[in-house]
Formats: sequence, C-alpha cells, structure tokens
Amino acid sequence: MSYTLTEIARRLGGEVRGDAATQVDSVGTLASARANQIAFLTNGRYREQLAGTKAGAVVLGPQECDSTALPRIVAADPYVYFAKLAQLLRPSAGFAPGIHPTAVVEASALIADSAHVAAHAYIGHNCVLAERVAVGSHCSVGADVRIGANSTLYPNVVIYAGCVLGARAIVHSGVVIGADGFGIAFEQGRWIKIPQTGRVVIGDDVEIGANTTIDRGAIDDTVIEDGVKLDNQIQIGHNVRVGAHTAIAGCVGIAGSVKIGRDCRIGGAAGIVGHLSICDGVTISAFTLVTKSITQPGTYSGHPQLPHREWLAQTVQLRRLDELASRIRQLEAQLAALEGRKP
Amino acid sequence: MSYTLTEIARRLGGEVRGDAATQVDSVGTLASARANQIAFLTNGRYREQLAGTKAGAVVLGPQECDSTALPRIVAADPYVYFAKLAQLLRPSAGFAPGIHPTAVVEASALIADSAHVAAHAYIGHNCVLAERVAVGSHCSVGADVRIGANSTLYPNVVIYAGCVLGARAIVHSGVVIGADGFGIAFEQGRWIKIPQTGRVVIGDDVEIGANTTIDRGAIDDTVIEDGVKLDNQIQIGHNVRVGAHTAIAGCVGIAGSVKIGRDCRIGGAAGIVGHLSICDGVTISAFTLVTKSITQPGTYSGHPQLPHREWLAQTVQLRRLDELASRIRQLEAQLAALEGRKP
Amino acid sequence: MSYTLTEIARRLGGEVRGDAATQVDSVGTLASARANQIAFLTNGRYREQLAGTKAGAVVLGPQECDSTALPRIVAADPYVYFAKLAQLLRPSAGFAPGIHPTAVVEASALIADSAHVAAHAYIGHNCVLAERVAVGSHCSVGADVRIGANSTLYPNVVIYAGCVLGARAIVHSGVVIGADGFGIAFEQGRWIKIPQTGRVVIGDDVEIGANTTIDRGAIDDTVIEDGVKLDNQIQIGHNVRVGAHTAIAGCVGIAGSVKIGRDCRIGGAAGIVGHLSICDGVTISAFTLVTKSITQPGTYSGHPQLPHREWLAQTVQLRRLDELASRIRQLEAQLAALEGRKP
Repeated sequence: MSYTLTEIARRLGGEVRGDAATQVDSVGTLASARANQIAFLTNGRYREQLAGTKAGAVVLGPQECDSTALPRIVAADPYVYFAKLAQLLRPSAGFAPGIHPTAVVEASALIADSAHVAAHAYIGHNCVLAERVAVGSHCSVGADVRIGANSTLYPNVVIYAGCVLGARAIVHSGVVIGADGFGIAFEQGRWIKIPQTGRVVIGDDVEIGANTTIDRGAIDDTVIEDGVKLDNQIQIGHNVRVGAHTAIAGCVGIAGSVKIGRDCRIGGAAGIVGHLSICDGVTISAFTLVTKSITQPGTYSGHPQLPHREWLAQTVQLRRLDELASRIRQLEAQLAALEGRKP
Repeated sequence: MSYTLTEIARRLGGEVRGDAATQVDSVGTLASARANQIAFLTNGRYREQLAGTKAGAVVLGPQECDSTALPRIVAADPYVYFAKLAQLLRPSAGFAPGIHPTAVVEASALIADSAHVAAHAYIGHNCVLAERVAVGSHCSVGADVRIGANSTLYPNVVIYAGCVLGARAIVHSGVVIGADGFGIAFEQGRWIKIPQTGRVVIGDDVEIGANTTIDRGAIDDTVIEDGVKLDNQIQIGHNVRVGAHTAIAGCVGIAGSVKIGRDCRIGGAAGIVGHLSICDGVTISAFTLVTKSITQPGTYSGHPQLPHREWLAQTVQLRRLDELASRIRQLEAQLAALEGRKP
Repeated sequence: MSYTLTEIARRLGGEVRGDAATQVDSVGTLASARANQIAFLTNGRYREQLAGTKAGAVVLGPQECDSTALPRIVAADPYVYFAKLAQLLRPSAGFAPGIHPTAVVEASALIADSAHVAAHAYIGHNCVLAERVAVGSHCSVGADVRIGANSTLYPNVVIYAGCVLGARAIVHSGVVIGADGFGIAFEQGRWIKIPQTGRVVIGDDVEIGANTTIDRGAIDDTVIEDGVKLDNQIQIGHNVRVGAHTAIAGCVGIAGSVKIGRDCRIGGAAGIVGHLSICDGVTISAFTLVTKSITQPGTYSGHPQLPHREWLAQTVQLRRLDELASRIRQLEAQLAALEGRKP
C-alpha cells in the first residue's frame, strides 16, 4: 500500500514541496531509506545525512524546508508527523479472534468473542477480557482481572489476581503486574510479612515496557493513570500513583507510596525514595536520585537532586576543585611571606 | 470474619482504649478506611489524617494514644502490630492439592500429595517438592531441584537445575534462580566461557520479589541464608552469600563473590562491587555504590561510599562550593591590595 | 572421567610441576576443593588460601609457581587456563533431539531434526531453527525468527517476530529480545506511539544473561555483533549497536541509538544516554553515567563521566573539602589580623 505526498498531506496535514505525486510505502532513516521510502529529519545530530540520503521524500521542519531539493513535507513538528505517518504506513496487525486449544481458561472467565488468547495462556476465574483483547502465549492472568478493549499482552506477561487494566493497553513480555509490595516489619531479629491486599489499577492508553514490574498496593491500590508510558525494567513500588501522561524511561526505580504528578518526564535509571510527592510538569534527568518532594515544575538533576542549573554549576565547580586548592596554597604562601614567615 | 478489639488484643497483645466491643473485619489506611475497618498510624507523615479518618478503630503507638477519641489499640510497635493484624484478618489463601492436567511432570520427580502444580508448569527429573508446595502456571523447575514445605512459586518462575529452596519460600513472578554467573576469560580478542557448576542454595523463610535474578555459583554455591527478604529486580551475582535476615530493596546490584553479613539493610538501587565483604548489621543507603569492604556496623552512603555522617557533610559542602570560590576571590583581592598590587 | 596433569597439559598447554600422574576429575576452589579436584589461583585476594587447600593439584601463574609443593600446572594466564580446563572437565550436556508433544509449532516453521523444543514452547510461523538449537520450556519464538546452529534458549525466553540470532548463542531465562523501543512523540498533552518496525539482529557467539531486554529498532535494526557477552538485567534501547567482543556487566542501561565500539568493557549499573558514540577499546567503570561521546580508548568513571584518573583526583579532593573550607577560614582570620580588623 503506497501513498503520494498529496494523499499523505491530505490525511496528516503539512505542506508539500517538490513533486507531490511521489509515492512512498514505508518510513526509513535518512541513512538507509530507499526510493520507495520517506525519511525525516527530527534531530539536528543527523542533519548532515540529509545531503546523501537515497529516500524518495523527506519530512522536515520549517527551518529546514529549503535544505534539500527532494520532494518533501514541511511539518510544524516533524517528529510528531513522523509518528503519525509511521502509523499510517504500518497499521498494527491485529489478531485473529479465538482461544487457542492449548490455552487454559477457567469456566467463569468472560472473554469477548473478538478477543484472542494464544497458545498456553492461562486465564483465571472470573476474569473479564473485553472486545479485541489479545493475550499472548504463556501469559498468566490471575483471578478477577479485568482488561479493557483493544489491549494487547505480549507473551509471558503475568497479572496477579484482582488487577485492572484499561483500554488500549500495550504490555510487553516479562511484565509483572500486581506482585506483592515490599512490606515487612522487623521484630526480634525477624521480618514479618505484611499481606498486600490492594490492587494495581491501570487507566486507558498505557504502554508498559518489557520486564517492568508494578507492585500491588499494601491496602489501597497502586494507580497508573491514563496515557502513562513506561519503558523497560522499571520498578514501581506499592501504593505509587503515576499521574496521567507521565513518561518514564528505562531502569527507573520508584519506591513505595510515591505520588508523581501529570505530564512528568523521568529519565533513565533515576530513583525516587519512598513517600515523596512530585508535582505536575516535572522533568527528572537520567540517573538522578530524588530524596525530597518537588513542589515546583522544572528540571531536576543530581544525587541528591538539585534544580538542573544548580546541578550544572556544581558539576563545573567540581571540575575546578584542583584549581581552588592550588589558589588556597598560593594565598597561604603569600600571606606567610607578608607576615615574614616561611610558607 | 470479624473480630472485636478485645478479641484482637487477646491474640496479639496491645491495650484497648474506647469501645472494646467495636468490630472490624479488615485493615484500611487512615485516608480510606471505612467503619468496618481498623486503620493504623505508623509513620508521622500521616498524623494529620488521624483527625479525619472514617475507620472504625485505629492502632497507634503509646505517644499517640490520646490523639484520637476513636476506639483504639495502643501497641509498642504499631507497624509490627499492623503486620500481625493484617495476617490475622486475611489468612493466606492456600492452594488446592493436585497437579493440573496440562502440567508436565517428569516421572522421576517426587511431589507431595498436598502440593499444587498449576497449568502448564514443568517439573524436571528428580525434583522434590515437599508438602504444600505451590508451583504457579508456566513455572519451569529444572532437574534435581528441591523445594521445602509450604513454599509458593508464583507464575513464570524459572529455577535452573540443581538449586535448593528452603521451607516457606515466596518467589514472585519472573524470578530466575540459578542462571549462569557472568564468568568469562579473555584470550586473544575473544571471551571464553567458564562453565558455572555451582548451585543456588536458599534457606528457609526467604521472599524473592518479581524479576529478581540470582546466579548459580561458578564452582561453589551462591547462598541466601534464612529469613532474607529480597525486593523486585535485584541482581545477585555468582558466589554471593547474603546473611540471615538481611533485607534488600529493589533494583540493587550485587556483583560476584560479595559476602554480606546478617541483619543488613540495603537501600534501593545500591550497588556492591565484586569480592567485597560487608559485616553484620550494616545499613546501605539507596543509590550508594560500595567500593570497599565494610568492617564496622553503621550506615553508609554516597558514591563511593562514606559513613553516612561524612557523606551528609560532603553534600552540604558541595552546595557551598560557590561560596568557597567567592571567598577565595575575595581573599586574593584583599591580599593584592595589601601588597599594593592590582587584584 | 578423570585426567592426569600430563594429559591436561597435552591438551591445553602449560608446564607441569610435581607429580604429573596426579588424577583430577573436576575443578574446585582453593577453599573447598577435594583431592580429586584441581584448584586455581587467579586473583591475589585468595593467595593465602593456597597454603591450606586440600585440592589434588592447582593451576597458577609463573610468579606463583613455587608458592606450593602441590602438583601443579603453571600457565601464562591461569584464569584463561581455568576456563578451558573447566570446559574440558565438564563438557556441556547437550539436549535430546525432538519436539515435546506439548510444544506448539506452527506448520510453516522449519526445525532441524537435531533441534530440541521443550515442553510448552511456542514456535511461530516461518521460524527457522538450525541444527542442534535447543529451545527451553515456555519459550515464545515469534514469527519469522531465525536462530543459528548450536544456540540454546533457556526456559521462558521471548523473541519477538522477525529477530535474528546467530550460531552458538546462549540466552538465559527471562530475556526479552525485540520488544518495542520507547518511541513516543508528544502532541497536545498526549503521547503518540511510533511503530517500531526494525529488528534485533544478533551475531555469533553471543551470551545474554537472565532478564536482559534488547529492544527492536524503530526503523533500522538494533545490532549486537559477534562475541558480545551481556550479563543479567541489562536494558538495551532501540537502534543501539554493540561492537564485537564487548562485555557488559549486570544492570547496565543503554539508551536508544547509542553506538558502542568493539572490545569495550562496561561495568555494572553504568548508564549511557541516548545517541552517543563510544569508540573501540573503552572501559567504563561500574555506576558511571556517560553523558558525552567518548573518542579515546581508556577508562572512564564518575557521574558525569571523566577519565578515570581525573575522577579519582576529584574523589580525593571531595574528601578534603572540609579541610579546604577550614584553610579558607584561617586565611580570612590572618588577613583580618594583618589589616587590623576583627576576623
């Protein structure tokens, strides 16, 4: 299925320059695209690849619109345009409805006729799978779990009993939702387990990356609001709340009872210690350790965290420590000379 | 099943104040409990919620015992009391004995009649599962593995051949026990694999969080002693020994051959480099990197680690670096003036 | 199967001293080996164990060759020698050819007669498994995946559609290869998913540790070259390239589009931010955050990264900050006295 630039712009907007009848059937990178593909320039790092690209057409921003003679679409935000164009050129596959004969589905589960349950999956008592839900091979869906329409679980996902997923969820392999939170009390040299009786409740349009874990609440629920995007290998402790449309990069660890606002962005391998609150609109840099609640939007970095500008200044000062030390030595020598002492 | 405060105190201790005939059937948080629930105050952060709680009763410490007019139980350690009370009000479910017809169990495996093997599980040659062991769906238990009585494996756990688990283990989904340690030798531009022939040997009363990995020993065993509690996404390298009743929070990485003492507490995302020893009774703060052995009990923080007080002082000094630099500039100007030079 | 020292040296090289007819059948550590075992000294930390070992023989380097009276083999690199010797004494098991009756194999898959597919595995449409490939229980191999000869997948591995593994791969449990990269674009308060249409392409002789995740490329492929060794719980983002024979320790996070050269060594829990390049022959210390591209071979440490010597100097200076501050106070007092002011 191929489209002309004219047809693409009619659906997705943008301004066509050059031969608008150019046909493309897929997206490509500037470095590797072929004549049947449309490439894009969204990151200045790759600008020099524009001259040599073999793409049939490109998408770029207004500032770059004259940087190439290729047929092109000028878009206000070429990265967003690229996202929509990639979806247009590669609609997601869909799954054939039906339950594989090797799947084990408890009799009390309610599974929509349009849902797909793959080989060797297990669906527990009283589960509800809505229309067009797809459950991959070897998934284990515990009792009383509800999954909203058009959600996809890739193979080997585990959802513990009682958890809830909204519509259009995408859950990648190895994800564990609803395991016990780390609730233990210390008495006389031993740890006593605190039963974890809350659930994990996940809103609509949430994506969860491979091998990420989200623990169930101790009593109340752990909550992931609508539109949250989680990368791989993230750990979310019990009773955390992640606000709507917040995006979290890989390897982040969030301790128990943390409340994160809406529209936050958390960089890779950052950590947040327990019981803190982070307000809406906060950006946390990669590898930052958040040790105090954050009440002002902005960017924070470091360990423990500082406002990003202060952290940058500190980093620069750190590199000057040697110089500071030698200036102190120099001052001591001068003073000793002034005072008639040997330095 | 509900209990009066009198009945609870008879079983678990504590002193009842207010209406001792108040009935509760489950635990709740101060913020969300209803009249049939008992809440608790264990963390000063939540003290202000006491006034508005709708709980039928509360558990609190001696210092707070007059902070509310609600029916209440005063306990020396309200968090420990809460743990026991939650267990009383929600005894763990138990599993029906028996082997699901889709499970694959090798003929030489010895499985107690009271054990439970769920759908699609695999139990290898010569395994021994003791009384009331529960193996979740899609677990893979390798040859010659032994699992002690009353242990539970949640779905999708993998235990490699030859490993040993004690009694009352709780192993959450996605855990991998006994994969090869990272043993490689470099020769002429290539890595040569060192066969990993040791086991993982785990004591009694150990809990292991979701997606945690514990590698088998290179020759001797990796050992997790009794009562150790491991959170999610921890990596434990080959030949590590974790001492009894040590608790480790999520995302911690422990390199090969590290020896950790008893009764240690290791904060989230901390790291310990290979071949170090940590004595009994050490607390490691979150995000700390341990680069030297620790021979004195206490709390350690930072990267590389320092005794916690020294690390705090260093953190404060770091924030004053700008001030130190401007004081040096000031000194230089004064000295130049004294010496009759231009600064 | 046991060998004399003479037979071992004939196969693996090295010089025998003492009784060359000594027979050994397995490797052991200095601390725990018995008379039928051969131990080795490869790390100075363990030198003092040489005196007390009960091993029947030892392997050691030229400098230690007279440190024991035991029968011994002197090898230029005793660690490499140990690796080869361990392989000699414990050849890897191999798997019986054949497909378990509970495995689900799509009819269009091509599986070599000598391959092994374990219980409950799933092999998708058009997969190609070469000679002697072993697929463990509960593995899910997506459509169009190709796996080279003599590769082993341990239980519960997931390979998404279209990915390619070379020969002699060792993939441990919980590994996820080919999940979607974290590609999202922000528009009007919502995230738009960017379809991830590239693959993961893995060369020959690659080992991947438990619960490691390698994301598929956004458009072009994510590439792991020949001989790369990955430890557990590593996250590799979309479009990363890892050069041949690079070794990466546990818990490392590599963001999208990073290019890592050949023969690099990356320490545990290090992080590399997106779109950077690291040249051949670079060593990154544990817990380092790489925030700029590295163009010179060498060792780098810190957060953000510095050449290792500079980082060490900075660490030392940090510990002297208190001293620097008190020297500044002293200078201020002296100057005030000189100037006739009160300090």
